[in-house]
This record gives sequence, structure tokens and C-alpha cells, in this order.
Amino acid sequence: MKFKVSGDIVYETYSDSTIILNIHALRTPGQTVLEESFTVEPYFKIEELVSEQGENRLARIEVPANTKVGFSYQALVDNSYRVLTRDDLYDVPVAAMDASVLPFLFPSRYCQSDKLYRLANNKFGNIEHPYAKVMALTEWIFRNVEYLSGSTDSQTSAYDTVTEQAGVCRDFAHLGIALCRALTIPARYFTGYAYQLNPPDFHACFEAYLGGHWVVFDPTKLCPLNGFIKIASGRDAADTAIANLFGNIFCHTIQTSCELCDEGFEPLFYDPSDIKAISYQ
Amino acid sequence: MKFKVSGDIVYETYSDSTIILNIHALRTPGQTVLEESFTVEPYFKIEELVSEQGENRLARIEVPANTKVGFSYQALVDNSYRVLTRDDLYDVPVAAMDASVLPFLFPSRYCQSDKLYRLANNKFGNIEHPYAKVMALTEWIFRNVEYLSGSTDSQTSAYDTVTEQAGVCRDFAHLGIALCRALTIPARYFTGYAYQLNPPDFHACFEAYLGGHWVVFDPTKLCPLNGFIKIASGRDAADTAIANLFGNIFCHTIQTSCELCDEGFEPLFYDPSDIKAISYQ
Amino acid sequence: MKFKVSGDIVYETYSDSTIILNIHALRTPGQTVLEESFTVEPYFKIEELVSEQGENRLARIEVPANTKVGFSYQALVDNSYRVLTRDDLYDVPVAAMDASVLPFLFPSRYCQSDKLYRLANNKFGNIEHPYAKVMALTEWIFRNVEYLSGSTDSQTSAYDTVTEQAGVCRDFAHLGIALCRALTIPARYFTGYAYQLNPPDFHACFEAYLGGHWVVFDPTKLCPLNGFIKIASGRDAADTAIANLFGNIFCHTIQTSCELCDEGFEPLFYDPSDIKAISYQ
Amino acid sequence: MKFKVSGDIVYETYSDSTIILNIHALRTPGQTVLEESFTVEPYFKIEELVSEQGENRLARIEVPANTKVGFSYQALVDNSYRVLTRDDLYDVPVAAMDASVLPFLFPSRYCQSDKLYRLANNKFGNIEHPYAKVMALTEWIFRNVEYLSGSTDSQTSAYDTVTEQAGVCRDFAHLGIALCRALTIPARYFTGYAYQLNPPDFHACFEAYLGGHWVVFDPTKLCPLNGFIKIASGRDAADTAIANLFGNIFCHTIQTSCELCDEGFEPLFYDPSDIKAISYQ
Repeated sequence: MKFKVSGDIVYETYSDSTIILNIHALRTPGQTVLEESFTVEPYFKIEELVSEQGENRLARIEVPANTKVGFSYQALVDNSYRVLTRDDLYDVPVAAMDASVLPFLFPSRYCQSDKLYRLANNKFGNIEHPYAKVMALTEWIFRNVEYLSGSTDSQTSAYDTVTEQAGVCRDFAHLGIALCRALTIPARYFTGYAYQLNPPDFHACFEAYLGGHWVVFDPTKLCPLNGFIKIASGRDAADTAIANLFGNIFCHTIQTSCELCDEGFEPLFYDPSDIKAISYQ
Repeated sequence: MKFKVSGDIVYETYSDSTIILNIHALRTPGQTVLEESFTVEPYFKIEELVSEQGENRLARIEVPANTKVGFSYQALVDNSYRVLTRDDLYDVPVAAMDASVLPFLFPSRYCQSDKLYRLANNKFGNIEHPYAKVMALTEWIFRNVEYLSGSTDSQTSAYDTVTEQAGVCRDFAHLGIALCRALTIPARYFTGYAYQLNPPDFHACFEAYLGGHWVVFDPTKLCPLNGFIKIASGRDAADTAIANLFGNIFCHTIQTSCELCDEGFEPLFYDPSDIKAISYQ
Repeated sequence: MKFKVSGDIVYETYSDSTIILNIHALRTPGQTVLEESFTVEPYFKIEELVSEQGENRLARIEVPANTKVGFSYQALVDNSYRVLTRDDLYDVPVAAMDASVLPFLFPSRYCQSDKLYRLANNKFGNIEHPYAKVMALTEWIFRNVEYLSGSTDSQTSAYDTVTEQAGVCRDFAHLGIALCRALTIPARYFTGYAYQLNPPDFHACFEAYLGGHWVVFDPTKLCPLNGFIKIASGRDAADTAIANLFGNIFCHTIQTSCELCDEGFEPLFYDPSDIKAISYQ
Repeated sequence: MKFKVSGDIVYETYSDSTIILNIHALRTPGQTVLEESFTVEPYFKIEELVSEQGENRLARIEVPANTKVGFSYQALVDNSYRVLTRDDLYDVPVAAMDASVLPFLFPSRYCQSDKLYRLANNKFGNIEHPYAKVMALTEWIFRNVEYLSGSTDSQTSAYDTVTEQAGVCRDFAHLGIALCRALTIPARYFTGYAYQLNPPDFHACFEAYLGGHWVVFDPTKLCPLNGFIKIASGRDAADTAIANLFGNIFCHTIQTSCELCDEGFEPLFYDPSDIKAISYQ
């Protein structure tokens, strides 16, 4: 499916600053960027980087003090995904995991899986099938955590959310990841543009490693799972921030959009009674 | 300098288990492994892996339930390091950092630099030279944090240690890393064998990125900085655990040794009045 | 029922120290201390105090440096309790609570009820009868938190235990209290001697305020609810520590006993299907 | 000195609610309430309570659902205080403290003194005179913690503030209390109306127990120490909230004022070089 996405961000600097943006659509075997533009107004040199982890696409810009600077990204992207069924989603033992997958088993800044070990195993440990396990914890987050804008901040972690039970997409994703890792299922953070997300914004969910595939899960259930344009993946939001800001600098406005440019889109939400899942890339 | 190092670890399993050990000496341009043996008793197949981050050397072994299994690593290693002076240790602006360095600016599980921003800047922000900054925070940790075996556990993080002011080498390193990152200096965790560490054990300290070099710092001051044989580096202990254990499995004993096999070793400890530092690799 | 209880504690001082012990059986309308002795060996002056909150009985002793000092408390105590049924255990609205009860609604050091509001209400908020609510949360703690000696320390709080799901009687009680308060049910910490507790030790559980009575609950289920000799009540363990130590001083040994001196004791454990509860005092 | 104080608070209820306000000026030997009015509009019955701890004056009101209710408190109050000098401010050993003072040595919800023991003693333990100790920690808070409206919330505690180094008067007070207790100096929370506080608001600071007096300290230095009209004291903000709200209820507006009604007011701020302090009551 083709989607037209855009991200527009304006900053104001009060000192010389460096901005690292991570809003470009990923280029992967399953996600083709057909057209793309990235502009800065007023003009400053843009340096493109590729992060070592996840191969995310970064843009680094130096901006002098006392400047109001606007970034505008637009792209036409064709995403595709693989539909997986029960047989595809088998358990991968640690002994068979590729070295590149292992880091996604370990705790990270916002996903302290080491502290959730007993809780995760008490709640979900007796569920046999690994996909059913991740579905169950995703449902549990959806039912128990209240989506409440402004209830959390950039320091909120899965350890907070599991008890305080309120947050935004970022917090839902971190909790999902932490619970997966506590169950010895690798999991990673996923950011992207999301079709039919209302109000429009950058979105976050997570991927769990099942049967050798990174299968996408979204405990917010705010938008269809097959309408994502992937920006980045990483251990958690610390790896995949939309923007890292260095200097005395403030975000003025953020605007995003995601429009469908094809016909025949059938929104997909997981159905617990039907083991069918999707994996991007 | 040549050192003979050894690590012997015994586990007991109560279920089928997978063990991932990270006790092999790294092979780097500056560290040559001249001889090496790694044995398991009784024998189980050993799979060697290289971690994507830090290129650490992992050994993965599957062990059946109810087994007492012993691992023995021995190596003769020639380490070398570069001595750096004031001119080498300049500030690297974020705008000039290589993409591979950026992740070491971000908070991680045990190094919540985002929470230490004001504290780090209040205490050390007015120190001009970046090396002097890291020296100052290293000294501050040494003077304020009590080395106290058993006072912390595997969940203790820099956020705890900065206030509770007690811990072991791991906690000292995490706090040093978190303070560096809060000052926009990339920093990473360093594990290794350590000459003259008493009692012998695996050791942890940290590296800060100054002037394009990973410069080693050890807030414990327990052993000379030029007597380390590097095992691994990573964001923090979550990346570089000596062992990751999956299954119902317990550590029985750990023993290490590190002996000098050369002459002319002059122990090096930093002197705050003399800007001279060392970087491995 | 008459019980003979004893507590023997030995300390060693390395500086001049002050010890405040709270191991005397309470004297209440329902609990009569028939005989009692409290000795210190070697002899130091004992000052008896009554805490303002809870009217707990404290003993304060000054001990010089480098002294091994032993305290021995023995008492013959007749405890009695009131058996309450469904009609007694009605909901008390905040508007009708006595001022002396209100502090037990507020969060305290180890019972951060303010952080558990959503979780408590998600899990137990839809249970109508207040006794059934407290029974349900007590059962939930019993089923989900593993009793594991040494898994927690003096800093562990309900906020930790709700997620980490391991602890000792103190942690079980703190979590019960925090959940009650989050449901607007006053709750307080209860320490005492406990008949049939194995191994013998000081015990902790909690009381919830239902129908104007302080009803006892014990999420550990380690001993019968009608075999307690109350020592103290308070907001949490910070108010009711067995000992507060000031100085460089260490606990050498603690021994307790609780023997039945009557016949006809019928151990009482709550039965979820039968609303019958007990209140001491 | 006579002051005219007022507090006006408006709430909106979305369910039947109970409100417990704590905005009345305390009546103490040193603080005389000359005139006073407390009105509710529209009218609901007001029940006056006295808290067991601190003898604070509470007003409890039941308000039905879907009501906008306004409370207005006005009082003319004559406050007085005792000026204390070096000789008055001696150290009180734990062995000589009244039982009513002991609870203010223990950790509480927002003042986890048990976690700050080493930090407090590393920083301030070598200062001999107890008043100089509390002055030093008050100055340290003033210099290191940034006063930043909106940077903290109702869950923020001294353990957070000591590291994050930003907050409001409540956070400054909690940190002062926690550090005192960690140094074995009893300390309690103080709320009141404050002359020359700009913008006007309810204020919080703390009292330390020195030489048998509760001596007032204010790490914010926002207003003179002799311009306070005391509302309440307690262990921390959990004991002395301006309002405790039970039900689905929101605060609409809060307004306060504090005007001087006498002549000859000389604003008093502590001078570290001059041991002179004040104690209310």
C-alpha cells in the first residue's frame, strides 16, 4: 500500500545547537521510499547518518543561537508486510537466536525487564504458545493502562507504567517490550507514521521476535496494524527519539500526516481468537 | 605488556539451560591474544558468537538439567595502550561525532543520564577542559561512594548510587558513565581482567570519549589503569554481563586470575595535576 | 486465650549508642498483660515511653561503646478479639471517619498508595462489599507475591513489591496497606508475636478499618489470625520498628517464642466464602 | 505582628464528594487568631476536626455531584516568634527527646531519610554545631535546586529532588526534612500563608528540632522567615495537604493573600555568619 507521509517540526534555539532528527521513513526490503524530500528553512547544512543499531536514518543539523528553524519531511512510501499464521510463530529458544537479536532480550533504560520477571511469569508464564503470550500481555496493557495524554513524561519507564497504569503510546510500547523480555521473548521499540491515528502524531508500538520474525503489536489499538510507515526500531525510546536536542533549544510545533494513496485498504486489528499476525520488512 | 589471565566458573542447572558467557579477552588492534583455551567440563558444544555492539566475544552453551558444569578460560594476552596528553583530549562536539558513538550519549538501563542532567551540570558543568571534567567526576565518585561488597545488587543503577553512595566496581562505573552522558560526553562500560586487583575478580570501569579516543577511567582506584585486559565494552552492564543465564540455574563459584608475564610494569594511576591519560585499542 | 511470649535481642555497640525497642506487648481493652519482665544484661537504665501514635510501648536505653548488651522480654498475655460478620463490616464513608482514622488513609514511607490508585481500582474497585474487597486483595497478594527470605531489605516498599512480587511478612503487609488506602479504606501496620509461626520471629500483618473496627488481615497466611499478641500499630514499619538504633551498633541475635497456655485453641484462617472476621482490642 | 490572610478555593464535583480542607490558621500559644470567617457558597454543612498529629484544624464538607462550590477563608492573625541564639540551639541527643518528637526522626512518604544517610553525612556530617548543619543543608538546597514551577508533581519526593535538582517549595521542604532526619535531627513540614511571597500562594517550608525548639528554615528564600502564618505541621505533605479530595472532583481556582496590618515589620532572612534563628509557637 502507498502512503503519503509528512512531518513538520519547528524549533527555536537560544544557544548554538545541534539537532539530530529521526523522522525519515526507513528503507527496507519491505518498505520502499518512492519519493522523498527533506527541507530546512532557513537553510542549514543537513548531514545524513545511519545509526549502527537498527540502521535508522538520522539527519544532523547545526543551528546557531536565536534561530527559529523549521524542518519539513515528505515522502511517498510503499509498505508491505508478511502475514503470519500459527505455524510461523513458534518459540525461538535462546540457544538458536542470532547474535543480533540477543540485545533485545536485555533490559534497557525504559524497559526494566529484570524487575518484571516474576510479574510477567505469574501473569503470562503459563500460556503455551508464544504468540498467544504476547497477545495476552498486549490485551492486558490495553485493558489496564489508561491512555491519558500528559500523564507521563520523558523519564517515565515500564516500571512506572506497570503500576501507575496510565500513559501514552510510548509508555504502552515500553511496557509491552519489558514484559516480553521478562518472558525471554526479544522485543524492540517501533516508531512510525500511522494511518488513521487521530489526532495525527508520530506513533510508537513494539515488535516481538516470534518464529524468526519481528511481529508488530500495538497495545493502544488506536490504529490499524497494517497502516504503519516505519521510521526506526531500537531498544526503546532512548535509541529512537524523533529528535535529540543538544543546546538550549525548544520545540515550537510538531505536525504529522499520513494519507492513503491506494485503494483496497482493509484495516487489520488482531483478533485473539485467530492466530494471524503481521511482520514488516 | 603480557598478562596471563584465567576465569573459572561453575554452574549447577535445575532445568535445561542456556548459558551465554562473555569472559574471552577481546581481540583488538591494541590487544593481541597470543594463546587461548576455553574448556567445558563435562563437555558440551560451545558456540562462539560476536555481539553486534562492541564486537564482544560470546560463548553460548546448552546444558541439560541437573548438571554441574565448569568453564575454564585461560589466555596469554599482550595489551598495549596509547598515552594521551592535554592536546589529544579535546572536546568533540555532537555535530562531529561518528554515528557509532552517538548511542553512548543516550541513557541506558543502569545509567539514567537524563535524570542526572542538573546535578552533573551543577557539579561539573563549569569545568572547562573535558578531561578535567571527567577526572573531577571520577574523583568525586571515589571520595563520596563507599566501596562496600554486598551493598548493591543486579538492579542497582546510577540513579540509586548517586544518592545512596555505596556500591561495587559496577556501580562506580555506572555512575561515572551516567555523569559523563549528562555532560554530553559519550561514555561506555568496560569489563576486564585486572592486574593487582585484590581480591581477584572480574573488574568494571568506564571509558569516556575525549578527542576521538576512548579514554579509560576507574573511580574505584583499586588497581592500575594500565593493567587491564579488556573483555567487553557496551552501554552498561546489561550489554556486557559476564554471564547471561536462561533457565533454572545457579552460579556455584567464580575464580579469576591475572598475572604479569613481562618485566618493567610501572603502575599508572591518574594524577589530577598532570593531564596524561590512556586509551586501549 | 493466654500466650507466653518472649523476645531476646543482643546488640554490640562500637560507639556510644541509643536503642529504642518496641517489643513490649500492648496493653489494650482486649489484650491483658498478666505478667511481664524486661531485663537488660549488663544492666543499663531503661526508660519507658509511650508513642503518641498508636500508644505503642517503647523502651529507650543508652549503651556505651564496645558493649555487648542483651535484652530479654517475657510476658504472659491474655488476648481476646471480637468476631465480626457481614453486617458489622460495612463501608465507612470518609465523611464519617473519626479524625484519628484519617492519617491511615494517607500514603506513608513504605505504602505509596498514591501511586497504586489506578491499579487498585482496576483490580478490586468493582467489588462491592468492603470486606470482600480487602479479602480479595489479601488473596491476590498471597497468590502473587512469593515469600522469599532475604529478597528485600529495609528500603523495600509496596511500590517495589507490587511489581517485583517477592518479599517477607513486612512487604506483604505494606502492599496490603497501600492497596487498601488506594481504595479509600484506612489501613495500618500491625506487629506482634505470632503463635505457630515457623520459624518463630516477630511477625507483621495489617488491619483495615471496616465498619468502625480495625480488622486483621495477613496475606502471608503463615499462622492463624487469632494467635497474635499485638506489639504495635502504626502507619507502616517506619512507625513500628522492633528496634531503632542510633550509633555504630549491630544486631547480634534475635530470638522469639510464642506458646499457648490455654486449651481449646481453634486456629482461624479466613474463608473467602464466609464473611467472618476478627478485630483485636 | 498582625496579618490579614485569605484563601479562596473553588472546586467542581462530578460525583458525590468529600473535601477535607486544611487552610485555617493554627491557634497556638504564639499565634492568635483575632478574627476569622469561613464560608462555603452554595452552603453545605461544614464539620470542623482537629487532626491528632500536629493539632491541625481541618474542615470536612460533603458536596453532591455536579456542583461548583467555593470556599472562602479570611482571618486576622497575630503571629509571634522567639528569637534564638547559639546557646539555645544545642544538640538534643536521641536519649533526651520527648516521645512526641521521635516520629519526626523516621522516614515518611516524601522524605526517605533512610536512603540519604550516607549523602547527608558525607556532605554535612563534619559540621559540628547542629544549627550550622541545618543552615548548611538549607543553603545547599537553595544553591543546587532550581525553583521551577511545574517541574514536579504530587508524587515527587526528596529522593527524586536530591538528584533531579528542580522543584517547588514543597520539594525544597521535603529535601530539607529528609537531610535533617538522615543527620538524626528531627524535622517536620510547615505550611502557611506567607507575607511577601510573590506570586501569592500557600507556602511550605520546614522546622528542625534544635535545643528543644522547632526552628523554621526555608530553602527557597522566597519570603521573610518572620512573615509566616502557620496552617499546619506534619511529617510531610501527606499529613498537611491543603486539601484532600475524595470523589471525582477537580480544583478550579486557588487564590490566597497575606497582608501586613502592623507597622515596623523588619524582614528576617538567616545570615550564615550570625547564629540567630526563630521559632514559632
